[in-house]
Amino acid sequence: MLPLDKLITIDKSSNTAVYLQISNTMIHQIRSGRLRKGTKLPGSRKLAESLQVHRNTLLAAYDELQAQGWIETEPRKGTFVVQDLPDIQPQGIVQTTPKATYPRETAFTVDESRIVQFPSGQPSHEFELTIDDGFPDIREAPIEAYTRELRSLSRRSVFNKYYRYGSPEGVNYLRETLSSFLNDSRGLPISPGNIMITNGAQMGIYLTARLLIRPGDHVIVGDPCFWGATRTLQQTGAEINRVPVDGSGMDIDAVERLCKKKEIKLLYIITHHQHPTTVTLSPKRRIRLLELAAEYDFAIIEDDYDYNFHYASSPILPMASLDQHGNVIYIGTLSKTLVPSIRMGFVVAPENFITAVSHQRRAVDWQGDSLKEVAIARLYENGTMDRHIKKMIRLYRERRDRFCGLLQQKIGDRVSFDKPDGGMSAWATFLDNDLNTVEEKSRERGLRIPNSRVYNKGSVYNTIRLGFASLNFKEQERAVEILSKSLS
Amino acid sequence: MLPLDKLITIDKSSNTAVYLQISNTMIHQIRSGRLRKGTKLPGSRKLAESLQVHRNTLLAAYDELQAQGWIETEPRKGTFVVQDLPDIQPQGIVQTTPKATYPRETAFTVDESRIVQFPSGQPSHEFELTIDDGFPDIREAPIEAYTRELRSLSRRSVFNKYYRYGSPEGVNYLRETLSSFLNDSRGLPISPGNIMITNGAQMGIYLTARLLIRPGDHVIVGDPCFWGATRTLQQTGAEINRVPVDGSGMDIDAVERLCKKKEIKLLYIITHHQHPTTVTLSPKRRIRLLELAAEYDFAIIEDDYDYNFHYASSPILPMASLDQHGNVIYIGTLSKTLVPSIRMGFVVAPENFITAVSHQRRAVDWQGDSLKEVAIARLYENGTMDRHIKKMIRLYRERRDRFCGLLQQKIGDRVSFDKPDGGMSAWATFLDNDLNTVEEKSRERGLRIPNSRVYNKGSVYNTIRLGFASLNFKEQERAVEILSKSLS
Repeated sequence: MLPLDKLITIDKSSNTAVYLQISNTMIHQIRSGRLRKGTKLPGSRKLAESLQVHRNTLLAAYDELQAQGWIETEPRKGTFVVQDLPDIQPQGIVQTTPKATYPRETAFTVDESRIVQFPSGQPSHEFELTIDDGFPDIREAPIEAYTRELRSLSRRSVFNKYYRYGSPEGVNYLRETLSSFLNDSRGLPISPGNIMITNGAQMGIYLTARLLIRPGDHVIVGDPCFWGATRTLQQTGAEINRVPVDGSGMDIDAVERLCKKKEIKLLYIITHHQHPTTVTLSPKRRIRLLELAAEYDFAIIEDDYDYNFHYASSPILPMASLDQHGNVIYIGTLSKTLVPSIRMGFVVAPENFITAVSHQRRAVDWQGDSLKEVAIARLYENGTMDRHIKKMIRLYRERRDRFCGLLQQKIGDRVSFDKPDGGMSAWATFLDNDLNTVEEKSRERGLRIPNSRVYNKGSVYNTIRLGFASLNFKEQERAVEILSKSLS
Repeated sequence: MLPLDKLITIDKSSNTAVYLQISNTMIHQIRSGRLRKGTKLPGSRKLAESLQVHRNTLLAAYDELQAQGWIETEPRKGTFVVQDLPDIQPQGIVQTTPKATYPRETAFTVDESRIVQFPSGQPSHEFELTIDDGFPDIREAPIEAYTRELRSLSRRSVFNKYYRYGSPEGVNYLRETLSSFLNDSRGLPISPGNIMITNGAQMGIYLTARLLIRPGDHVIVGDPCFWGATRTLQQTGAEINRVPVDGSGMDIDAVERLCKKKEIKLLYIITHHQHPTTVTLSPKRRIRLLELAAEYDFAIIEDDYDYNFHYASSPILPMASLDQHGNVIYIGTLSKTLVPSIRMGFVVAPENFITAVSHQRRAVDWQGDSLKEVAIARLYENGTMDRHIKKMIRLYRERRDRFCGLLQQKIGDRVSFDKPDGGMSAWATFLDNDLNTVEEKSRERGLRIPNSRVYNKGSVYNTIRLGFASLNFKEQERAVEILSKSLS
C-alpha cells in the first residue's frame, strides 16, 4: 500500500477547489504510472485524516474520479484504480508536479508574422486628466435612458422573442428605424434591406475588407489615415497604397494616377472630418472619386463615423447619397453619438452586398445583441437620439471654440492647427518639440495625450489629434496649462 | 430661363425629405449638364409656388445646395449655379431619373465562391410551436436580474470608465470572476490573463481558426459535427477531414490514422454532449487525443458550450484541465446559460495565444460591450448565475425524462434515439419517414422542427436534434402529438 498521502500536496491558497486538487493529483499519478491500475485505494476516512482535510472533501474527490472513470468501488471490497485504462508509457506523458498547473505557452507555434499588431495604451481612467483622440463626453451620454429601455423591454414578455437566435443583419425594428433616419438626415434613399447592424464601425470595415480583399489586392487609403482602418486592411492581406490628404481631403488626381498603374480593389476614405486630419472631402472631389470608382471598377468604403457632429452650416451629404452605380459601402457608428463601449454601428450597401456580408458575419460572431438593438431603435423613435445629437452639437461647438482659443493663446507659437468644421478634435502639429518628449513630460504632470507613433507606419508626423469634446472648460484650461508647461 | 419646375418631380410619399428630393434632383440636373454652370436660378418664392411646396422647404433645398457648393448667391443679383465645377461629360454620368434612387446591385462583383453560405430559417416566433435544436427556455432566464444590474451600473458615475474604449480581451472584472468560476467548477488552473471575453462561442471559434488556419490547412471535425463550426472553418479556407463519432465520442484511432497521412493543423471537438449527437468523449479517448496532439503538434478547439447542463453524476472535467503541453484552446459560452441573443462567451488558452488572438479581435470589432461584461460579472458574484444553473439542471433533467418518455411512448417505433446524459436535445433518427416530408407536414400543423439538411454536407442523415429544454410539459405533449401525426 503506497503512501498516497505523500504523493498528494494540497495548496489551500490556490483558486482550485481542494477536492479538485486531490482528484487532479491522483489522475496525474495514475497517468504517470505511479498509481498502478487495480491498486486498492485507502479508505476515505483514513486518507482524509492523513491529508488533514474534511472527509466530505475526500469523498468529493473520489466521486469526481469515479465519475471520470478513473476508479471504481466494489461493494464490501473497497475502491480501486480501474483496470481498463490505456497502458500509457510514462515518457508519453510530461512529468507534472502534483499541483495542477496551466501551460505557460502553446505547444504549437502561433505565427506572429500573420498578426497585425494594434497598439495598446494604458487605460485613460488611470490618468488624472486626458486629452483623448477625439471622443465624446461620456458624462453627457443618455446611458440611463438606454438602460431604462433595456429594463422595460425585459419586463414585457412580448419582447421575449428577441432573446432567441435572430438574423445576422440585425433586428428589423432597428433596420427600419435607421433607414428612415438615414433617409431624412443624410439623403440616403435606402430601405431596411440595405442595412446591416454591426458591432461598431470597426466590424463594418473588417467584414467589407474580408469579403472583397484577397491577399495582395491593392487598396488606397489617405496619408495620413485612421490607423485602425489601415491595420484592419493589412490584417486581411491588402497591399496599402497611400495618397496625400490636403485641405480639401484626399488628392483624387493621385488616386487616378494610381488607378492607371495598378488594379485597385478598394478605397477607404472618411469624407467628413477625416481621421486624423479633420478635413472634409470637397464636392468636386466626391464627384471625381465616384466617377473613378465607376470607371476603374473599385469599391469605396465611405467611413462616416463623425457625420452627426458638424458645426458649420448644414453638413455635406454623404458621398453614398450621390452613388448611382453601387460603388460605395457606407459605414456609420453610434460610438461617437452614445459611448464608445456601446459597440453598435451599421453598414449601408446594395442588397446583394448585405446578403453576402451577412454570411461573413455569421462566421464571425453569429449575430448581434437583439435586446440592445431594440433598445437603441426605441431611443431613435422616442426622440432621445435626436435631442442628444442636437444638444451635443451645441456643446461641442462651444468646446471647440473655447479649446482652439486656448491653444492659440497659450501655445499658438509652438503648435500649428486649423480650427475643424466638425468632429471632436483638432489636428495639431508640434513645431519644435518632439511629441514623444511632450507625451512623457505631460504624463509626469498627470496628463495623458494621444500616442503619435500610431501614424508612423505611413510617414512620420509630429502631429496628434487633440480631443476637445470630452473636456469641460475647467478641464480644457488645466490640460492646456500642463501641455504648455511640457513644451520647451 | 429653363423650366426648372418641369425637371423636378416630388414624391410626397417618399421617405426622403422633400427639400432633399429637390436638392438631390437639382444636383443630378447640374451633373447631367441640363443645368449649366452660371445659370441663374428662379427666385425661391416663384419656384416654391410652381412646385407647390412651402417656401421654407425650397429655402432649405437652396441652403443644402449652397452648403454643398453647387450654387452661390450674389447680393442683389440672385442665385447661380457655381462656375468652377469640373467639366463633366454627360455620358460620364449615368442618366438618372430625377427622383433619387438607390442602386439595386453593387457595381463591383462580389465573389460568391468565397462566401460559405449559412442556412437562414424562418424565425421561430413566427410559429405556433417549435421543437428547436436544443436551446434554453428563455422564459426562465434571469434577464430581469441582468437588466437590473445594467440599470444600477448606469446610475453610478463610478462605472463611467466602462463607457470608454477598453481592451479587446474584455474587462478585467469579468475575466477575474470567470477565471475563479472556471477554476472551481471545471478544474482549470487558470488566471485572468488566460481568458478573453468574446461575443459568444462563435467568435472564439472564428478568431482561433482565423489565427491558426491558412487556406488549404487540414483540420479534423467529427462526422457529424456542429454545422456552424464546420462552415466557419471552411470560411477560413480549411480543408475539412471528417472522422466518425460513436457512442464514446470521436473515433481517436481514426484521428491517429489521419495524422499519419496528413499534417493536421487543428482539431475541433465538443467533448460534452457533442452537437449534434449528444455523446460525451470518454476519459480514455481524451488522454489519447491529448497525446496525439502533443505528438503531431496540432491545436485542439475544445468547444464546451454545454458543460453546465449535465444530468448524470458530476460531469467529467474538460479536456483542457488535463492539458499539460498547451494544445487545447478551450471555448465556452453564456448563450445556453442565459439566452442566445446575449452574445457572450470566452476563450481560455495560454497567454501567448490570448495576446495574439486579442489583436485579431481588434480588427474584427475592436472590443466587447464593457457595461454588459461588468453586469454579467456581478451576476456571477451575487450568485445569480449559480442559482440559475442549479435550477435549470433540475428543470431540464425533468423535461428530458418526460420528453424522452413521450417520444418512446408515442413514436418509439418510428424513431430511434438514446436518452442523453446532458444538454438540451435528443439526437433522433427517423426510421421510415423522410425528414423533409416530416418537416413540411409538421409545419402545416403549426409545428416547426429543426432543418436536417444542414448536416448533409458531411453525409446524409435522416436524423435531427429534438430540443426538450425550451418546452414545458404541455408544450412537449402537443409537439410530440403533432410530430406523431406527421409520421406515416
